[in-house]
Amino acid sequence: MQPATPRPTRLFTFVAGSVGRWLVERIHCLEGAPLAAAPRLAIHAGPVLQPARETFWALRGITSNERYVDRAERAQLTAVQQGLDRTEATHAALIPIRKNAAWWALTQDERREVFEARSHHIRVGMKSLPHVARRLHHCRDLSDSEPFDFLTWFEYAPLHENEFDDMLAELRASEEWRYVDREVDMRLTRE
Amino acid sequence: MQPATPRPTRLFTFVAGSVGRWLVERIHCLEGAPLAAAPRLAIHAGPVLQPARETFWALRGITSNERYVDRAERAQLTAVQQGLDRTEATHAALIPIRKNAAWWALTQDERREVFEARSHHIRVGMKSLPHVARRLHHCRDLSDSEPFDFLTWFEYAPLHENEFDDMLAELRASEEWRYVDREVDMRLTRE
Repeated sequence: MQPATPRPTRLFTFVAGSVGRWLVERIHCLEGAPLAAAPRLAIHAGPVLQPARETFWALRGITSNERYVDRAERAQLTAVQQGLDRTEATHAALIPIRKNAAWWALTQDERREVFEARSHHIRVGMKSLPHVARRLHHCRDLSDSEPFDFLTWFEYAPLHENEFDDMLAELRASEEWRYVDREVDMRLTRE
Repeated sequence: MQPATPRPTRLFTFVAGSVGRWLVERIHCLEGAPLAAAPRLAIHAGPVLQPARETFWALRGITSNERYVDRAERAQLTAVQQGLDRTEATHAALIPIRKNAAWWALTQDERREVFEARSHHIRVGMKSLPHVARRLHHCRDLSDSEPFDFLTWFEYAPLHENEFDDMLAELRASEEWRYVDREVDMRLTRE
């Protein structure tokens, strides 16, 4: 056996409860079943095998290869996007979403068509760059029974919250969002 | 809370050991670390929480949405492909593969270009239809540390083994396979 190549951590667990660096300011359910309100959120790199007793809920997601972005779009994104953990980015959002069976039954070309050609997901998302940093986590293929398909984590300075909200409103009005059957929007600030 | 919608099982566990419906005829490692030889293979729908003591190894994979097939290709595939568990399909193959970091760093359009435009994965695979039935399982996004990225399970009548081998040889000679850094080919017969 050759030794296992260490790979960087791709799995993250978002734990809502009484501990964590992020204070929950509000939690709003836009579609489908809500998530319980909790005072704080902790983000763990890796799985959480023994959740603390004060855990309200925990959501897992894994970063993965891009599914829709093409080479030219990635070049544009890479040129302007910024990473997480910037000093000024004291505000954050966790937005778990689930898409319906009709979405997952589309073929790759059909999903790309709805995603970008008709809903402009990448182009709209770029409007909030470089101010809003983002990490997308996939959940659907972690198991048979994940409550969401995606968890997206955003960080920004308070100054840019309106811009962030405008971007979300534009996406939520798009054709792609007709396939969203569960969505929660949780806003947080850093201690 | 709305009641959880029951979804069909997408997660499968392939357990090599002393029990199972499938007898292992041979196991051949083409690239990377081998898998231990075992007398039998059992396929469980769902996770295996407590593996039997005689388990040599267990591999998990989850069926998912298609990543490359377009609408026209799916129509062609659907018109000719057959399901698993046909009476005459007494032979099977389990082919776990892993692709390297260079593959996963490609954008969607680049992967599609290598996969179909240059390696003709779909077109070559179609040559063995309707004789060879196939189920693809994804592993890479189950966790941070899966030993393979994909498990493909094939079933066919003994009469069509040559055709199946020709199809595999053509794929393995393709540009796409330059990105494969681990591959094992396990052949089985049904009791």
